[in-house]
Amino acid sequence: MTIPFLTSDLRPELDLRLAKVREQMIADNLDAILVGSTVNIYYLSGCIFRGYIYISIDRKPLFFVIPPSFTDEKEFCVAVRKPELISEKLSEAGYELPSRLGLEYSDLLYSDVERLKRCFPGVEIADASMSLRKARMVKTDYEIRKMKEDGMHQAAVYSRIPHCYQEGMTDIELQIEIERELRREGCLGILRTAGSRMELNLGSVISGENADTPSPYDFAMGGEGTDPSLPVGANGVTLKPGTTVMIDMNGGFNGYQTDMTRCWSIEDVSELARKAHECSCRILHRLEEIGRPGLPISTLYSEAVEIAKSENLHEYFMGHRNKAGFIGHGVGIELNEMPVVMERNHESLLANMTIALEPKFVIPHVGAVGIENTYRITETGLENLTPFPEALTEI
Amino acid sequence: MTIPFLTSDLRPELDLRLAKVREQMIADNLDAILVGSTVNIYYLSGCIFRGYIYISIDRKPLFFVIPPSFTDEKEFCVAVRKPELISEKLSEAGYELPSRLGLEYSDLLYSDVERLKRCFPGVEIADASMSLRKARMVKTDYEIRKMKEDGMHQAAVYSRIPHCYQEGMTDIELQIEIERELRREGCLGILRTAGSRMELNLGSVISGENADTPSPYDFAMGGEGTDPSLPVGANGVTLKPGTTVMIDMNGGFNGYQTDMTRCWSIEDVSELARKAHECSCRILHRLEEIGRPGLPISTLYSEAVEIAKSENLHEYFMGHRNKAGFIGHGVGIELNEMPVVMERNHESLLANMTIALEPKFVIPHVGAVGIENTYRITETGLENLTPFPEALTEI
Repeated sequence: MTIPFLTSDLRPELDLRLAKVREQMIADNLDAILVGSTVNIYYLSGCIFRGYIYISIDRKPLFFVIPPSFTDEKEFCVAVRKPELISEKLSEAGYELPSRLGLEYSDLLYSDVERLKRCFPGVEIADASMSLRKARMVKTDYEIRKMKEDGMHQAAVYSRIPHCYQEGMTDIELQIEIERELRREGCLGILRTAGSRMELNLGSVISGENADTPSPYDFAMGGEGTDPSLPVGANGVTLKPGTTVMIDMNGGFNGYQTDMTRCWSIEDVSELARKAHECSCRILHRLEEIGRPGLPISTLYSEAVEIAKSENLHEYFMGHRNKAGFIGHGVGIELNEMPVVMERNHESLLANMTIALEPKFVIPHVGAVGIENTYRITETGLENLTPFPEALTEI
Repeated sequence: MTIPFLTSDLRPELDLRLAKVREQMIADNLDAILVGSTVNIYYLSGCIFRGYIYISIDRKPLFFVIPPSFTDEKEFCVAVRKPELISEKLSEAGYELPSRLGLEYSDLLYSDVERLKRCFPGVEIADASMSLRKARMVKTDYEIRKMKEDGMHQAAVYSRIPHCYQEGMTDIELQIEIERELRREGCLGILRTAGSRMELNLGSVISGENADTPSPYDFAMGGEGTDPSLPVGANGVTLKPGTTVMIDMNGGFNGYQTDMTRCWSIEDVSELARKAHECSCRILHRLEEIGRPGLPISTLYSEAVEIAKSENLHEYFMGHRNKAGFIGHGVGIELNEMPVVMERNHESLLANMTIALEPKFVIPHVGAVGIENTYRITETGLENLTPFPEALTEI
């Protein structure tokens, strides 16, 4: 196995990411970070291996690799059987032990962090999860290219959704055909999420009343699911005339994800549903215009709420019986990255953040309407990474 | 939402599970456990809700439910906005604070456990993950019925695998068609695993040389995968005459899983491959005979190794270039439950454990051969929960 970011043409990508991580480490007063989570190992190596990555402020990073993962890059890689050997290997490589070491409190299990802590007796330990999330929040050009590629694949699959539909289908039957199209397009079939409040197969297809069923998970929309062991998304309802079907399926094709939602109607739907769908598009177009570096993230939220209110649609916005408290979220390696687009987020947008915005409405007896796109923040506005027709049309 | 195990007909199931958990709590010197992980909440309630379950030794369990999850069972359920309110609510309900409280060190993130710890100042905190895993290791009759149902669905899908195959297909193309059949049969589309060493979509399809490619994950077989962000399983190789295709796809239909592998050959394969496949079947039949309560788990392992050695197949057993150190594992809500069937497991089998046994071989240039079944331990031997023809036949 070769670690992609150590090969000559991608080496500058590693350096860019290291620079961002180190900037956060300095801000968070960390001398070093020992990375052990799948997502952050992927971020810092371009692959998944068994082991750990040690990042210090001024020395080259060291990749501690546990067999059978292995690599040829002797300069950066150290084979270890277990993490207990890392401090000894650091010392052999001439690295001083850090005085303040960061570990991933929100990306590793309690028992894993405790084990790593015991590997560094006498060293002060602090959280590195937030530092890494903040570094990952602003994407490199290489990451943006990966996400654009992802968005193109996702849009290609969405263009085939009407061909997946047959009259009389249930939501889950339609979802299964879309999943097959996603997989045939190259979707890897897993959905990486941060924290412990999300579980989902390849995405969510919600129709009719099911749109207003609460879910214990942290998704913008809920759904009953088909079994009490996974209460989210499609619930097996037949797609009936007069309802909508909201399709929010996974776009993970290359280690990165884009998040994208479109709605179709089954025959015709109420004027209220059409109006709310158009309002969602108007909200997005307004946010596309005003979103740029420096804008308070809370402004995206309040602007969306204001538009919904001005059209007397507030009672349906982001749910009807149950309302989500956010209208968007960062996206990248994980589906739910920083920032969260909500009222009490007091940070501002930064160039090359990538965020999914999903101003959706739930219309009683009809279903969910509205769309979701993934955007890159640019100096002149939001760049849509998931372009695809937005109108509510008959499937 | 109604918590299934509080409804009249399933209430005895909750009591059975509580009895097993309490037995472990007493053995592990825990006065109480506060459960917060998805899998253990599912185990103790029969559903997923947002919140926590408080189990003491002698008082009734309390379900602390965070909105929008809610329930009508006032007797057992307490609404809370956040875990910081739990100790106050316990006190209001007349519960004394425990002196030693168990939290799930190996099922929750570090930050989640630390937050819960802070909710119980002055209380000694200990690990409850192992206690809960041990309780879950021995299944109730209800759980066995769920797993049998699961095995029947999985076998039904496996019977359709030859119809999914078309000459000239790649491994991943075949896998996608099997995934669709699984989903149409009712597979929920997620694979719950314990720990942080497993990531996979709906299972693994491995053919030819790919069988001997190491993976950083803890599966018995590896595979390169189709992208560095998910290095496991199918790698896009065309299914060629003279090779095998090993199919180890997920069987999660109802909150429980069975684990099952079968192999097919593409046209004819070498005598060595056929012999090794038959050896795998012989190993399983031998283990089916000897496996019963009281047998050291290590004996299952050593017996399997002995049979492989006696047929001069040891060099191919459980991998060729890379060898897995186990031949089986517990299975239930999660794919990798206790016990692990390996040499240094000094525990003995217990009645109603459910274990997947997978004595597999990797034959260079041909691929993986062998089968895997999920078994229940009974007084008279192993009961196969995944019955399905075992022979290596042409697909």
